[in-house]
Amino acid sequence: MPSDAAALPRELAELATELDAGDPLAAYRDEFILPAGVIAYLDGNSLGRPLKATRERLAHLVEHEWGERLIRAWDEAWMDRPLALGDQLGRAVLGAAAGQVMIGDSTTVMLYKLTRAALEARPGRAEIIADTENFPTDRYILDAVARESGRVIRWIEPDPASGVRLAEVEALLSERTALVLLSHVAYKSAYIADLPGITRAAHESGALVLWDLCHAAGAVDVALDAGDVDLAAGCSYKFLNGGPGAPAFGYVAARLQGELTQPISGWMGHADPFAMGPGYVPAAGMRRFISGTPPILGMAPVQDMVRLIEKAGLPAIRAKSVALTEYAIRVADEALAPLGVTVASPRDPAVRGGHVTLDHPRMKEAVAELWRRGVIPDFRPPRGLRAGLSPLSTSFAELATALAHLRQVLTADL
Amino acid sequence: MPSDAAALPRELAELATELDAGDPLAAYRDEFILPAGVIAYLDGNSLGRPLKATRERLAHLVEHEWGERLIRAWDEAWMDRPLALGDQLGRAVLGAAAGQVMIGDSTTVMLYKLTRAALEARPGRAEIIADTENFPTDRYILDAVARESGRVIRWIEPDPASGVRLAEVEALLSERTALVLLSHVAYKSAYIADLPGITRAAHESGALVLWDLCHAAGAVDVALDAGDVDLAAGCSYKFLNGGPGAPAFGYVAARLQGELTQPISGWMGHADPFAMGPGYVPAAGMRRFISGTPPILGMAPVQDMVRLIEKAGLPAIRAKSVALTEYAIRVADEALAPLGVTVASPRDPAVRGGHVTLDHPRMKEAVAELWRRGVIPDFRPPRGLRAGLSPLSTSFAELATALAHLRQVLTADL
Repeated sequence: MPSDAAALPRELAELATELDAGDPLAAYRDEFILPAGVIAYLDGNSLGRPLKATRERLAHLVEHEWGERLIRAWDEAWMDRPLALGDQLGRAVLGAAAGQVMIGDSTTVMLYKLTRAALEARPGRAEIIADTENFPTDRYILDAVARESGRVIRWIEPDPASGVRLAEVEALLSERTALVLLSHVAYKSAYIADLPGITRAAHESGALVLWDLCHAAGAVDVALDAGDVDLAAGCSYKFLNGGPGAPAFGYVAARLQGELTQPISGWMGHADPFAMGPGYVPAAGMRRFISGTPPILGMAPVQDMVRLIEKAGLPAIRAKSVALTEYAIRVADEALAPLGVTVASPRDPAVRGGHVTLDHPRMKEAVAELWRRGVIPDFRPPRGLRAGLSPLSTSFAELATALAHLRQVLTADL
Repeated sequence: MPSDAAALPRELAELATELDAGDPLAAYRDEFILPAGVIAYLDGNSLGRPLKATRERLAHLVEHEWGERLIRAWDEAWMDRPLALGDQLGRAVLGAAAGQVMIGDSTTVMLYKLTRAALEARPGRAEIIADTENFPTDRYILDAVARESGRVIRWIEPDPASGVRLAEVEALLSERTALVLLSHVAYKSAYIADLPGITRAAHESGALVLWDLCHAAGAVDVALDAGDVDLAAGCSYKFLNGGPGAPAFGYVAARLQGELTQPISGWMGHADPFAMGPGYVPAAGMRRFISGTPPILGMAPVQDMVRLIEKAGLPAIRAKSVALTEYAIRVADEALAPLGVTVASPRDPAVRGGHVTLDHPRMKEAVAELWRRGVIPDFRPPRGLRAGLSPLSTSFAELATALAHLRQVLTADL
């Protein structure tokens, strides 16, 4: 096994050292739990590392909030948390003014609720626009909701190495379009869709747009309010480091909240939950999109990461993210292309999110060998190594080490 | 303020001491975090106390499973957890054989999914039977699902101090009935419905039954398989001590799993989640009822409590629960009735669950004063003090202390 970046050409190894030395966010890496056994972790876009602060926050939550305040903590702190944390997330990460974001449910359930809400607000329109390269849950939910509401899905088949273009959406938009559902950052290629352009085009046809932000939130500039976005949903366990199965977030533009209702009308979305009266009356504002009792434990790690992102600032985070993906592509071009590796992500950083996908015919076996070595990227069928480069927890040296191992594995072991 | 049970008649105070001395489960109280500032906690049926083991489990989960195994922990431990923990819960608490219980979602979402699944399995039947005293979320979800599927709800208005009787259900059952939705233990009165009898009657009409187990699981004998139950759902933050907003559980009888599908078809319920192919194919068995990524942090405290319940044994837990509620009723009759307190729960322990509701015209103010003193019961409108007596964490002395404070408050302060 190479030590550090030994298997990379000297120039590329030295570049990693220089980039770390000049990284204004380098110190943030110390905020995360970094176990010795993991040589390099390139899967921050599947499951972000835990923050050290999260350990302490959970201990405090169990011992004091839950253990000591017990049921009283609902009034004192927890009832407002899905909306308060939503506001923080909106401000630090999503470009959303207060009162438009809530935390809760799984991403799948959140997508279901917001899809249903949107379709019910466009009753006379029979078509939904979506793309075949979107994450499975998005497609499955859409299939089910389209079937139950008698809608037809118009599928875009985008270039897998990039993603859905504005022109492809425009070609399908019409007065029949009820909803457009797309990912802001494509989960395979990392292509950044033209969020404001597509949203504008959809609005010109009278359609609503629901943006899936799973691979965008915490890695790229998500300017929901500026883009006049209608609806958005995303998960918090990727670049928001919320931990395995952490709750989702949902965004509904303030201008739409009065006319939209969601199908899973639970007591926590009621105008007066503790009156416990007959008949559901949706709360005003964003609270109406909450269904059940908010998952307080699951929100705790997200609180830590949102605070850290706010401190570091999203522009600086995005700049480092671009530098990390640029470095990965340079290594791929100079040191891995001769071994048959191709870059399956956009080369223009302006349309590339926080991860890079590298293809190779034998990548599945290569990733298995990397895992055995303690180098942990993601594998995505059919032949992609997906390097999710969480900006605050990933160093250039770590990335160089991982790519050095990949180079060695592809050279020697396969 | 009275110290301990000083304000109770000597005989009742001494009885509490005797009952604690003879309690075979008394030592289990040490397993819970018991802060000094809480004089008595009678709200285990809203939010159970945390276990000390949960503190350590969460620390280990963050540091080692999440922090060290990272994404690999999904394969190693987490993917199966919703079903593995479901099996444990089924065995220790629900009387359900393996392969019929899953953990996930909020109770509200779980009720929505199972209600939809049941109704779609009875397409030609237009009626749902439910009761006006059921918990708001159940009623709101049913309202919404009935509206969207063109069903009519036939409402039973049960005696609020008990609950829905078999005869009341039988009077409404017919070949038009698609679904019966009831709580096993009524959230206000604690009345235990005749689960096997009502299930049998519904089946004779060809209807399905969905049992809400929120106030039953962990407190009473829930014999799902023996009762030939079709569907059940419940929460894990009451007598299962899962913490604020802990995930729900859902039960679908093995004999029905093949014919039922749920509406929120996410990737985790797919037959092959990581194939990420086009078109949703539901997994075989209970996995098809999972929607999104399982909430691993939220499940952790439930793991601890299920283990503890299995160790103590549900029959012993139920016996202590009955003894606790019997004691509360005796104190109410002998020491609180003269102050205007009435028992709003069944007097027959065979049909009374793990809590007791005591009514008084000024109970709202009394509970507010109790909270100020660090004595924490629940208030449920219009005038009920609900004493949720979590069997493993509540001592008779604790209960006596709380009732002594109530007696003093009602005598002196109101």
